[in-house]
Amino acid sequence: MNDVIQQRLNHKTIRSFKAEPLTKEEISTLIDVARQASTSNFMQAYSIISVTKQELKDELAKVGQQPYIAENGHLFVFVADQRRNYLIAKEQGVDTTLQGSTERFLSAFADAMIAAQNLLVAAESIGMGAVFLGSLWNDEAKVIELLQLPKYTFPAVGLVVGWPNQEPQVKPRLPQEIIHMENGYQDLEHPSQQLSKYDKDIQNYYDLRDAKKHVDAFTKQIASRMSNQHPGRLQILKALRQQGFLEQ
Amino acid sequence: MNDVIQQRLNHKTIRSFKAEPLTKEEISTLIDVARQASTSNFMQAYSIISVTKQELKDELAKVGQQPYIAENGHLFVFVADQRRNYLIAKEQGVDTTLQGSTERFLSAFADAMIAAQNLLVAAESIGMGAVFLGSLWNDEAKVIELLQLPKYTFPAVGLVVGWPNQEPQVKPRLPQEIIHMENGYQDLEHPSQQLSKYDKDIQNYYDLRDAKKHVDAFTKQIASRMSNQHPGRLQILKALRQQGFLEQ
Repeated sequence: MNDVIQQRLNHKTIRSFKAEPLTKEEISTLIDVARQASTSNFMQAYSIISVTKQELKDELAKVGQQPYIAENGHLFVFVADQRRNYLIAKEQGVDTTLQGSTERFLSAFADAMIAAQNLLVAAESIGMGAVFLGSLWNDEAKVIELLQLPKYTFPAVGLVVGWPNQEPQVKPRLPQEIIHMENGYQDLEHPSQQLSKYDKDIQNYYDLRDAKKHVDAFTKQIASRMSNQHPGRLQILKALRQQGFLEQ
Repeated sequence: MNDVIQQRLNHKTIRSFKAEPLTKEEISTLIDVARQASTSNFMQAYSIISVTKQELKDELAKVGQQPYIAENGHLFVFVADQRRNYLIAKEQGVDTTLQGSTERFLSAFADAMIAAQNLLVAAESIGMGAVFLGSLWNDEAKVIELLQLPKYTFPAVGLVVGWPNQEPQVKPRLPQEIIHMENGYQDLEHPSQQLSKYDKDIQNYYDLRDAKKHVDAFTKQIASRMSNQHPGRLQILKALRQQGFLEQ
């Protein structure tokens, strides 16, 4: 097992960072790695916005309801971006019709995610930590306004990167036999039974976010999450359509 | 610059693999790395299907219109999967309503992409190469049928991994000043002018896929792709709805 694999297996989400900011060179290296990631149809349909203004970080922290968004660490927002490609085509006199399609949105969203994960891998390789911010989805319309995102762009995910100020445990994941299948989908037949050992592993996991709180079994966590949701997250379809996506 | 960053900057898509299959141990290690990736709300809403049956590979190669899908290399299909979480919640007697929402689809799709990229990183770290297969999107309904994907699952992306049988050049990416912005979206004002150097870089890139064919400038490639599309890719919205997603 090589160092890279060891590092990847040791991945932990870091939510608290030291006051030491990333240097320009470090940011540039991370962006270079993101850029070199795979991209659907070589369209490079994503952009990365570094959020460095404190008031903007404060506003995004309110959206995400996570104070650490506004604190230490460098905040990147990865944007699914067909706008640039639309403008390129338009300048060439091409009558574009596809920039708003579901496929073009998904391929842009995929590009953004793959680039973000590549950046995270590079950051962790030099000892930095990172946390993805799906929480920006709580109010996509607000994020769109704050970052002045035009039609055919959509905020895919935030990522805070910095020097770790905490050392969480590695959080156990669902076992291979549950998530890896062969030649076709395999339904989970008796969830609580098949996941009973995993439920115990999760209950034994020590969560730094609230050390006093008992961690629920995985199946209980999922049951709760499948019936409760931040209401803003039900506005994503609307926000996508406002940005011109999912037209066909 | 450490080895990991060097490796990531040296990433190239590999589309031809040696006849040497991956061992069970290698596959298991790659799956372990995929499993340890970040996951939205800790829902682990993805599954990985290894396609090992030759006739199934042949059918998927027909969908993707890429013969190499059926050839050497291990074929993984990453599936956005809220089905498992839906079944867990249902067994716990919870009245689930969210599994079909746009947010739950996107978070599952994000989980699948992040896991896939983590697996690719691990594969490249041991000298393997890989190619993402967005081409499975040409006919999602057929892929859903072939892999028996039930409601609340959706094939996100394919990934072929194996020992490289070719050595392509590193393909130049859009420069930092185009894709990296600060504190807000920056529109491309004069695309052909701002991309003129990059257009030349791409024209100088030597594409192994068709060494005899002249490689178009990036802006020309994009203009063509924004107006032409495999007709099957316009059926993705329909396929998503058939799988129960985008209900709200």
